[in-house]
Amino acid sequence: MNKRMIAYTQGLLMICEAGLLLLPLITGLIYGESNTIPAFLITIALLCFIGLILIKFKPEDKTIYARDGLVIVALGWIILSLFGSLPYYISGEIPKFIDALFETVSGLTTTGSSILSDVEALSKSLLFWRNFTNWIGGMGVLVFVMAVLPLSGGGGDLHLMKAEAPGPSVGKLVPKSNRTAQILYLIYFALTVLCAIFLLIGGMPLFDSITTAFGTAGTGGFSIFNDSIGGYSPFCRGVVTVFMALFGINFNIYFLILMKHFKEALKSEELWTYIGIMGISVFTITLNIREQFTGIGEAFQHAAFQVSSLMTSTGFCSTDFNQWPELSRTILLMIMCIGACAGSTGGGFKISRVILLVKYAAKELRTISHPRSVKVIKFEGTRVKDETIRGTMAYFIVYVAILCLSIILVSFDKTDMTTNITSVISTLNNMGPNLGPRLVEGATAGYGAGGPFSNFGTFSNLSKIVFILDMLFGRLEFFPLIVLLTPPKSLRHKIANRKRL
Amino acid sequence: MNKRMIAYTQGLLMICEAGLLLLPLITGLIYGESNTIPAFLITIALLCFIGLILIKFKPEDKTIYARDGLVIVALGWIILSLFGSLPYYISGEIPKFIDALFETVSGLTTTGSSILSDVEALSKSLLFWRNFTNWIGGMGVLVFVMAVLPLSGGGGDLHLMKAEAPGPSVGKLVPKSNRTAQILYLIYFALTVLCAIFLLIGGMPLFDSITTAFGTAGTGGFSIFNDSIGGYSPFCRGVVTVFMALFGINFNIYFLILMKHFKEALKSEELWTYIGIMGISVFTITLNIREQFTGIGEAFQHAAFQVSSLMTSTGFCSTDFNQWPELSRTILLMIMCIGACAGSTGGGFKISRVILLVKYAAKELRTISHPRSVKVIKFEGTRVKDETIRGTMAYFIVYVAILCLSIILVSFDKTDMTTNITSVISTLNNMGPNLGPRLVEGATAGYGAGGPFSNFGTFSNLSKIVFILDMLFGRLEFFPLIVLLTPPKSLRHKIANRKRL
Repeated sequence: MNKRMIAYTQGLLMICEAGLLLLPLITGLIYGESNTIPAFLITIALLCFIGLILIKFKPEDKTIYARDGLVIVALGWIILSLFGSLPYYISGEIPKFIDALFETVSGLTTTGSSILSDVEALSKSLLFWRNFTNWIGGMGVLVFVMAVLPLSGGGGDLHLMKAEAPGPSVGKLVPKSNRTAQILYLIYFALTVLCAIFLLIGGMPLFDSITTAFGTAGTGGFSIFNDSIGGYSPFCRGVVTVFMALFGINFNIYFLILMKHFKEALKSEELWTYIGIMGISVFTITLNIREQFTGIGEAFQHAAFQVSSLMTSTGFCSTDFNQWPELSRTILLMIMCIGACAGSTGGGFKISRVILLVKYAAKELRTISHPRSVKVIKFEGTRVKDETIRGTMAYFIVYVAILCLSIILVSFDKTDMTTNITSVISTLNNMGPNLGPRLVEGATAGYGAGGPFSNFGTFSNLSKIVFILDMLFGRLEFFPLIVLLTPPKSLRHKIANRKRL
Repeated sequence: MNKRMIAYTQGLLMICEAGLLLLPLITGLIYGESNTIPAFLITIALLCFIGLILIKFKPEDKTIYARDGLVIVALGWIILSLFGSLPYYISGEIPKFIDALFETVSGLTTTGSSILSDVEALSKSLLFWRNFTNWIGGMGVLVFVMAVLPLSGGGGDLHLMKAEAPGPSVGKLVPKSNRTAQILYLIYFALTVLCAIFLLIGGMPLFDSITTAFGTAGTGGFSIFNDSIGGYSPFCRGVVTVFMALFGINFNIYFLILMKHFKEALKSEELWTYIGIMGISVFTITLNIREQFTGIGEAFQHAAFQVSSLMTSTGFCSTDFNQWPELSRTILLMIMCIGACAGSTGGGFKISRVILLVKYAAKELRTISHPRSVKVIKFEGTRVKDETIRGTMAYFIVYVAILCLSIILVSFDKTDMTTNITSVISTLNNMGPNLGPRLVEGATAGYGAGGPFSNFGTFSNLSKIVFILDMLFGRLEFFPLIVLLTPPKSLRHKIANRKRL
C-alpha cells in the first residue's frame, strides 16, 4: 500500500472541500446570516489546516494500486461527510451530530433522506449547502479532484474512477483518465445549467432554480420546501421529470453524441431497457391511478414524475404516492430497486447489472435442458468477460446480505415492518423516501415517519448509523468500504500465524 | 425426448395415486361419511382408467434423459394435483375448483397455506387426505414410485431424483438409485411412526396423532384444527418442535448414522450452520418476547416452536406470532427465506445454497483487493464443482425474478403490501402463513387475511393461480417447470427458421 499517496490525496480532497464550501459561505454573506457565516468559516479553516499538513506528504512514488484506489475513495467519502456535517452542527441548526452526519451523508450519496421535519426552517446558506452536496456527490468527489489535477502518472487514476463511479463497468472515454474526468464534469455541468435555465423560464426564483437543479442533477432529491416539488407549476415539474430521466442515462451516451457517434449511442442495450421499463411503468401506473385525479393527463404527469424520480433514485415527490393503489406502489418499489443506468448519477442496483444477471440465468437454464449447448454472454454488442459476471454475482450476493443484515438491525426499533424494510431499501439504493404508513399524530402537517414526505428523525441512533453505512455502501457499491473494513493481507497473515502458534 | 417413457411413468404415477387414495377412502368408510365415499371412488376410478391406458405405452427404450426427467416430474406434479383436488370438489366441501386445486397443491408442495376459513368443518376423510398430501409431497412422489418399481435400467432414475428432491446436490446413497429411494422412504416412514407414537404418549387421539405426524414429517403444516397446534399440551408441542427440526435435516445424515459413520455425519457443515442459525434465532426471540409470556420458559417454548416451524417451512403455529415485536417477526421472515437443509423435506432457499453463495462472494471480494489470490471453494470437505456454483447462482437469480414478478401480479389485489409480499415469500418457500396485518372484521374468530392463522380464500383467482404456480416452482425448484414451459429445441429451430424465411 502506498500510504503517502493515500494521505496526500486526502489532503487534496479536504482543500477541495474547503473550496466548495466557499459557495454556501457567499450565500450566507448575501443573505446576511450571522449564525452560519462563522460555522462555514470554522469548517473551511479546519479543512485547510489539516489538508495543508497532509499534502506535505508529497509521495515520491505516485502509483495507485487497486487496493489503494478503494481505500482512498472509502476514506475520502468518510472524511468529506464528517467535515461536511460541521456547518449544520456548529451553526446549531441541527443540534445532534449524528443527525447532521446523516443529512450530509444523505446529501453526498444523493440519497435525499432527511432527519428534518421542517426543511424550510433552515437558513438559506445551509439549504444551499444541503442541495450542493447532492450535486457534488452525484458525479463523485474524486472524479472532480482528478478533473482539476492530474493525480498520478500511471494508470492509478482509473482505479479511483472505478471505485467511485456507479455501475459495473467504467471505461475511459479518452486515453487519459483525467481528461475523461474533465469531459464527464463538463457534460454534468452543462446539463445542470440547462436544467436551471429551463426552471427559470418556468418562473422559478433564481435560488430555487439553482438548488432544484442541484437536487435533480445529482439525482439526490433534496428540496428546499417541505412538500418537495409539489408546490411548483406543472411546467417546472415537467422540466424536472425530463431532467431526472436524462441524468439517469449513462454519461458515455452523451459523450458519444458529442463525438457525433449517433448510431453507436442509439445501439445501447441499457438505454433501451431503461426507456422500456420507464415506459411500461408510466403506462401501467397512469391507468392504475387515473381515478384519483381529475383527468388522464394529470394522472400521466404524476406517474411520469414519480417513475422518473424513483427509477433514477432522486426521490422528489409531486404528490403523496403512498395513497396510490397497491399495484402502483409495488411497481415503484421494484423500479426503486432496479435503479438507473450504470455510469449515471442515479443509484440502485443498476440496469446493466439486471441485464447481465438475467442473461446469465437464461444461459444456465438453457444448459440444464440442453447440456451440450454452449453460449457466450454478450452485452452492448461485445462478449462479457467472465470476471465482470463473477463481480456482478458477488455484488448481488453482498447486496442481499447487507439488505438482510440491515433490516434485522433496524427492526430493533419499534417502527412497523414495511417502514423498516422500505427504509433500508431506500437508503441502500440512495433513493430517499420510504413506503411505510404515514404517522400523522405528533408530526407537523403532512409529515410522518413514512411516505414520500418521510423523515428519518424518529429512528434510534443505532438505526441512523445503519442507514448512514447503507447510504455509503450503496453509493460506493460496497467494495471500497468492505476493503477498508477488512484487515490488509499482512495483518491477516500475522493473525493466522499467531493462531498457529 | 422419450415420449413413450414419459406417458408410461405418468400412468404409473396415476395408479400410485389411486392406491394412496384408498387410505382416506377407508377413513371415510370408518366414519361412515356418505358424501366423501363416492367422491373418492370416482377419483380412484378415473385415475385407474386413464393410468391403465397410459401404461399400455410400454416403452422399448427405457432411457430417461436429463430433459425427460424434468418433464416427467413437472407433468407428474401437475397431474397429481389436478386429480388430488377432485375429492374436495366432487364432495362439494370446497365448492370452487380453483380453491380445491390450491388446497391440493398447497398440501403436496408441503406449503400448508389454506383457502379454508374453517378447517374443522371438513369431513374426517378429507382432513386425512389433506394432511396425507403433506406426507406424500414431503419426500416426493416419483421417489416413491422409484422405491416401489425400478423404472429404467440406465442411470435415468437419478435424473428423476435430482429433479424432484429439494436442494442443490443429490447423490446416490448406494450405487442403485431405486435402492436409494427405498432407504430414503424407510427413514422417512420410521421417523413419521416415531413422531406419531410420541404424540400418542402425550395423550393425543389416534386420528390427531397420525394427521399431525403427516403434517410434521412433510414439513407441510396442515392441521385439523383452526388454531393449528395451539390447543395441544406443551408436551405434544415439544414433540412437534423436535420432529420438525429433525425433518429439516438432510436425510443423508440419517443414512450415515444408520451406517454407523458417526464421525462423517457430525462433520457436516450444513448441519452445524442449521443448528447455529436455529440456536441464535431461538435465543434472540426468547429474550425479545419474554415480557409477553408468564415466564422465560414459556417464551422459550414458543420461540423454539416457531423457529423450528418456520425454518423448516412447516408453518404450524403455537401462538399468534404476528403480535410479537418487530425484531422477532423480522428474524422469522429471514429464516423463512433461508429454509432448511438440502435433501430434507423442508422448503425455502436451503442452507447449503446460502453457504455456497456466501463462500463465493467472500472469494470474489478477496480477489478484488488481492487480485492475484486464487482460492477454490470447499463445501463439506470437498471442492465444489464450477457447475454447482453456476447452478446455484442461476437458481438465486430465477428465485428473485419470480419473487418480483409474483409480487407485481398479486398487487393487482387490494390487500396491503406486507400481506402481498409475505404471501408470495410464503408460497414460494412452501411455508404456509403470511405476516400481514390481521383483518378482524368479517372473518370467523381468530381468522383474517393475514397472520399465522391466515387463509388465502379472499385473494382473487389471478392471485390464487400465481400462488399455485409459486408453490410448484418452490417445491420443484423452478427448473422442471421452466423446462416444461420452454418449447423444445426442435420447435425453437422451426420458429427460428420461419423467422428467417
